[in-house]
Amino acid sequence: MDRRTFLRKSALGGGAAAATALAAPAIAQDKVKLTMVTSWGRGLAGVFDAAQKVADNVNAMSDGSIEIEVKAAGELVGAFEVFDAVSSGQADMYHAADYYFISQHPAFAFFTGVPFGMTATEQNNWYYHGGGKERHHELGEIFNLKSFLAGNTGTQAGGWFRQEIAGPEDFNGLKFRMPGLGGKALGYMGASVQNLPGAEVYQALASGAIDGTEWIGPWADEKAGFQEITKFYYTAGFHEPSAGLTLAVNLEKFNSLTSQQQAAIEVASGHANVWNLSQYLNNNGAALARLAAGGVKILEFPDSVWDAFGGAAQQVYDEFMGDEIFASIYDEYVASMRASSQWLTQSISAYRAQRDRVLG
Amino acid sequence: MDRRTFLRKSALGGGAAAATALAAPAIAQDKVKLTMVTSWGRGLAGVFDAAQKVADNVNAMSDGSIEIEVKAAGELVGAFEVFDAVSSGQADMYHAADYYFISQHPAFAFFTGVPFGMTATEQNNWYYHGGGKERHHELGEIFNLKSFLAGNTGTQAGGWFRQEIAGPEDFNGLKFRMPGLGGKALGYMGASVQNLPGAEVYQALASGAIDGTEWIGPWADEKAGFQEITKFYYTAGFHEPSAGLTLAVNLEKFNSLTSQQQAAIEVASGHANVWNLSQYLNNNGAALARLAAGGVKILEFPDSVWDAFGGAAQQVYDEFMGDEIFASIYDEYVASMRASSQWLTQSISAYRAQRDRVLG
Repeated sequence: MDRRTFLRKSALGGGAAAATALAAPAIAQDKVKLTMVTSWGRGLAGVFDAAQKVADNVNAMSDGSIEIEVKAAGELVGAFEVFDAVSSGQADMYHAADYYFISQHPAFAFFTGVPFGMTATEQNNWYYHGGGKERHHELGEIFNLKSFLAGNTGTQAGGWFRQEIAGPEDFNGLKFRMPGLGGKALGYMGASVQNLPGAEVYQALASGAIDGTEWIGPWADEKAGFQEITKFYYTAGFHEPSAGLTLAVNLEKFNSLTSQQQAAIEVASGHANVWNLSQYLNNNGAALARLAAGGVKILEFPDSVWDAFGGAAQQVYDEFMGDEIFASIYDEYVASMRASSQWLTQSISAYRAQRDRVLG
Repeated sequence: MDRRTFLRKSALGGGAAAATALAAPAIAQDKVKLTMVTSWGRGLAGVFDAAQKVADNVNAMSDGSIEIEVKAAGELVGAFEVFDAVSSGQADMYHAADYYFISQHPAFAFFTGVPFGMTATEQNNWYYHGGGKERHHELGEIFNLKSFLAGNTGTQAGGWFRQEIAGPEDFNGLKFRMPGLGGKALGYMGASVQNLPGAEVYQALASGAIDGTEWIGPWADEKAGFQEITKFYYTAGFHEPSAGLTLAVNLEKFNSLTSQQQAAIEVASGHANVWNLSQYLNNNGAALARLAAGGVKILEFPDSVWDAFGGAAQQVYDEFMGDEIFASIYDEYVASMRASSQWLTQSISAYRAQRDRVLG
């Protein structure tokens, strides 16, 4: 059975594979030590915190029966090697952004964020109540992983540039750091796109190996220090309207845990999802004000650039829609986004507009 | 020491009372059975689900050392009696909306939602990273409670009316169900405001005891059946831009638990916060479409009504600002809202506007 057939059968069968795994938990060991490898430099603002929070909470809830140790990128394996390390059993679990692994399968992008896709709120609607979590499990299981959303950076900023972007032609030849399907879209616009782990971006920008970069948002970007090198910062971006972070456990290891330990990992991941998103969103406003006060020019992309982003994003989707798994998740994802987006406009957006108008 | 002095000292002392409680956990019992009383009718869509989810997750994670049993409103105590029941130790924990308890202290309103206040996303920013959780703990501890956010219904709909609302004068003499500070604001607009538990609203509306009601949003409101009686439904409302739900544990009972059990309750509450919000938001759009197809007129309040809401809300805040605790939390709350709101406009709102424009 090839990977695609497996997923299709699993999807049609209502997650039969997952149900079997849960129905027959293995005998528990008394004490379990688990190694979590991550794509994050030690202490990297927000992303490393989310990984550590999951570990701390699981450890705190487990009465010593489980102990997770968090490894930064490079301490055991490199930032982008965590997927293969956990899939193969070299490490027990990873914390990363799943769109780093689109070369393993392009559909992993949906569990971080995709161009013109869902915001964090919309993604959570789909994930917890619209079938997203089940698709994440099914996709992960193809690669011997049990995957959970366990963090979110929120809508990512457009990023840092050495000069103002007047139109889509300014991306032609630009050496830019952007992972995932967004990076592929910039490629269609003529950019020379690189994917670099967070901890390596500053040096690449400083050395001129790249002309510009996106990273996360004002708070994390300020801590990374990009304002020391570039002075043009674009707020809203098209590439990661949500940026979910994933905790993925080696599937055999996960199935060897007790149902209590499994529940602790799942619940701690959900907790980290809201805790981490609110960490970024609580800190971004003040950071943006500091960046502006320090001489960074705060900008929005003009409509002509957004239109070009839209065309390039469509080329990316066209590139992958021949893949059955990608196409099936894409269809569910877009249907869910359309279904939940309209109410958000009628409730939260309408309310915020009136609040702004009435409070002045 | 009176209640206000206690809180002020606690706030200034950096939560010394809470730290002491954590530093000296009592000896654990082998098996702990806990009764959770709720303000919800059994199975009431969303709210009861959130309570049950917390219980299920704590039970699943605790390896049998803790077992929470969920009681619906009226099974042990009435919907609005849960606060006193848990404060006194008659029950172990409650799941409710803390603004039901503004007569115990008006500042409880901030942990559900307040007129022209934060959305769920903004409230989570404040709660997890801006000091909100610590204020919730301090306020609860005055009443012998350990309080956690453990659910959210999202921005609540304006509600159900027997006829269209043309201007603020239409609220004069209107018998309307609305709890919390929003209800008090409608009172300043001349409405005869009643607070009824969710399970009692349909009958009150059907009998004519009330002319109209707000409850939650399209999905929960449709399940409650209000469209069978009234045909005018207003989407965005001013009264509960967020509606956080609280799990509060009797403080002595909480301190008697092991640190593992305490962590399980806190982490399961955080998980329920995102799980429950996304439950509503995933289902509201389709429910609104069904309501409209069934003959309900979907409306927005005109600006003149929003302006009147704004004036009335200010009267409510003025009424309570003499209370030192209320005023101190209000100041923090408003500062946090202003700090986090601007970035949301620049990132999520700007992105969604471009997505709508580009995707058409």
